[in-house]
Formats: sequence, C-alpha cells, structure tokens
Amino acid sequence: MRYALTLQYDGTGLHGWQKQPNTPDTVQEILENAVSKVTGAPVSVTGSGRTDEGVHALGQVAHFDSDKILPSYKWIAAINFYLPPSIRVIRCEEKPLDFDARKSPKKKTYMYRMYASPVENPLRMGRETWVKSLDVGKMNREVQCLLGTHDFSSFMTAGSSARSPVRTIYAASVEREGSSSVFRITGNGFLYNMVRLIAEILMKVGSGEMEEGSLKTIMEAKSRSKAVGPAPASGLYLLNVEY
Amino acid sequence: MRYALTLQYDGTGLHGWQKQPNTPDTVQEILENAVSKVTGAPVSVTGSGRTDEGVHALGQVAHFDSDKILPSYKWIAAINFYLPPSIRVIRCEEKPLDFDARKSPKKKTYMYRMYASPVENPLRMGRETWVKSLDVGKMNREVQCLLGTHDFSSFMTAGSSARSPVRTIYAASVEREGSSSVFRITGNGFLYNMVRLIAEILMKVGSGEMEEGSLKTIMEAKSRSKAVGPAPASGLYLLNVEY
Repeated sequence: MRYALTLQYDGTGLHGWQKQPNTPDTVQEILENAVSKVTGAPVSVTGSGRTDEGVHALGQVAHFDSDKILPSYKWIAAINFYLPPSIRVIRCEEKPLDFDARKSPKKKTYMYRMYASPVENPLRMGRETWVKSLDVGKMNREVQCLLGTHDFSSFMTAGSSARSPVRTIYAASVEREGSSSVFRITGNGFLYNMVRLIAEILMKVGSGEMEEGSLKTIMEAKSRSKAVGPAPASGLYLLNVEY
Repeated sequence: MRYALTLQYDGTGLHGWQKQPNTPDTVQEILENAVSKVTGAPVSVTGSGRTDEGVHALGQVAHFDSDKILPSYKWIAAINFYLPPSIRVIRCEEKPLDFDARKSPKKKTYMYRMYASPVENPLRMGRETWVKSLDVGKMNREVQCLLGTHDFSSFMTAGSSARSPVRTIYAASVEREGSSSVFRITGNGFLYNMVRLIAEILMKVGSGEMEEGSLKTIMEAKSRSKAVGPAPASGLYLLNVEY
C-alpha cells in the first residue's frame, strides 16, 4: 500500500527536510523513524521536495509504502505519537502505487511572511521577517510580472540541480493580513531558493530601498544578481502541494 | 527623571515578570540589568503588574528613574542593545514623578488566543491554545455577562493578594481572526489568573463540553470552582495598559 501524508512543521529547530549523514533533526529522518516504529519495519519516506533549515511547512506532502493496513485516523494518531511536537501529520491518504510525492506535483504554493515595525517584535521572531517599512500595494504590483512562463535563472542559487530554469507561475500576490504582509506564490515548481530571492527583492522594493520594477528588470536579465541574497528562511512556509 | 517603557516579550523561555531569588530569566531582572548598563547605575524597574511564566506581552508598561537625559529613540536603542531578542522596548516616554506604572493603570487589556483543529499545529505551539472544536458565536455571547462591575471571586486563584474581588469590565469579546479565535477583555484590573480561568471555561463552552451560560453561573456563585483550572499561560497576552 502507498500512503501520502500531509505534514506541518515548525522549521525553527530543525535542519531542513532532507536526511543527510551526520546531520540530526532533519524532518525526513525524524519522520522515517516515527513511521518505522508504527509499521515495525524500516520505511523510506519521499517528500514533495526539500525545505531548507528554518523553513516552515503547513502542507508538505510525503509518501511511503507499507504492508500495514490502518484507517487514516489511526495512521495519523500513531505517527504523531512518535513525532516531536514540532512536526505533525494532519492527513493520511491511501494512494495508487504510481503516486509519487516528489515527481507528481502539479502545483506548489509558498507563503513568505513579513511585517513592518520600528522595532522587531519578539513574538514574530522565527515566523515573519522584520522590515522597518513596507508598501503592500507597491509589492503586490511588483509581483505581477512573475505570472506566466519565464526563465527564472535570476532567482536560482548556484548549486541548484534543476535541469531547466523555466517555470510557470499561476498566482502571485502580496496582501495585508492584520499587521503582516503576506506574499503568496503558486507555480508548477520552484528553483532552489527562488521564493526567498524574490522575497528579498520584494522587501527592498516595499521599503523603498529598490525602485519599482526592479523585480521585472532582474528577472529579465536571466542571470543571478550578486547584489541581493535570499530573504531569511524563517519567513518562508510551504503552504500546499497539489497533485 | 521618570521614564515609562512599553515592552513586548515572548514569554516562552522566560520565568514571568517578577524578579525572584534563585530564579533566572525573569523579565524584570533582565530589564533592570539592561537599563542599569545604559545608565551606569543600579536601576529598579516597576511593572504595571506581573505576568506569569509563559505569558506574553505586546504592551507591558514599566517605569524607572534616572538622572540620565536621553531622547526617546536613544533610550529604546540603548536598552534594546542589552536585552535578549525575546524582550523589546517599543516606546519610551518621559513622565511626571507621580506616574506609577503599578498604581496608576486605569485600564488593562488582555487577549487570549485559541484555535480549533483536529490536530495541533506546530507553528502555533506556545502562542495559541489548541482545542478540537470551537463555536466563536457561542463564546462571544458567553463573555457578555462579564461586562460591568462584579465580584469575581470565582475567577481568583488561591494565594491572590487582591484586597477586593470586585472589578469592572469595560469590554469583552470573542472574534475570529483568520483561523484563530481571540478573546479580548478590558477592565480596571484583574485578579490573579482571572483571564486564564475565564478562558478555560470559555473553551469548554465553545467546544460543547460545558453548556452555554456556565460562565455566568460560575461567576454568580462567587466562589472558586475546583472543577476548572486556568487555561495554559502560552495563549495569554498582556495587550495594553492605559493610564
């Protein structure tokens, strides 16, 4: 049987999704250990993609295979029993054997959270990125250029394993939510660090440090600008993966 | 000169407001140390009231005296320089010498944050209290009985040093904010654990575990019911103190 799990995690104390030698506290390894305890046999877990250290998830998806047959709510309760409180399974679905969490995603949605304030707010640390001032309307206009199919080479960190820098963006917006500014972006896939590189430019435009239209200019240059690094990981959330 | 500071803190790793022998990491002691470093002399800091271990603040107020004269933005920057990131000064005002952060408050506002979900959300841990289900409309009706002047003996933990259990509540509401349910209450003062005792009953009414009207019945009994303990500290925020 193949099962798909939907996961939420607080990336703060975790070393990202991907299991690595000599690196404790990766989500993948913690999850494999928990699922293996439930099934009683070693289990491999495949995620929709890796998230970096500090990045959060509200809807990461991962699959595993097991001979064990349990109703969904029992899988959820049993796996959560062995997981630390920073990682939770919120859904478990039976899937056909050709379902692949990593290969089959049609759409992914990320959210980047920012807030403007004269002083950093201790209660938003590790959750949202602090900027002294932000113009949400300006930022929302700025992200419209991302819509459609583009070569996103400008928003790719060296070392990316992507074969092609072309991706299609279906939705992009920046909205005020309470006193937060929230950038949401949905695409058929994302290059390594792409959302954080875009978010950093966006915050610089929103605070007036870069001029309006900078995102488009940089995107159209189709080459990675060394001037702007990725925005902090702690503002980024993997929201949703659609298959 | 007397100065009033407005403070925000993440109560998670802190041992509450009040300085105590053999207890490290209290907000008062950390703040006194930071202010003393700025002024170059030992400084006592008086808060509007104590907050318990795990309770957060978005608008705690405290005063201190110093001969040092600095503009507000310099006090803020200098004190924040010596504070850990979990505590921030967001405002500093010069006050007359008869201003007393503890004795002069006219109104205080607290917020209690809850959310309903089948599974606990790792990103809300330590910030909001998890309940399986909540009826916000029902909870909002439930808190209306608190308005006005009442004997709140039912919502007072043993060991409270309050001379009178009578307090006046000016505003009370439960509202949906995104996927959170937020209880806000403004009064001329609160007994020890009063907001958390009310919040616990409120969650039990909102989830159907207690019947509508229970809050009023318990309040009118004017004696502490042992059936219901205080709601978790981590959902509580001191929002605002008015003088």
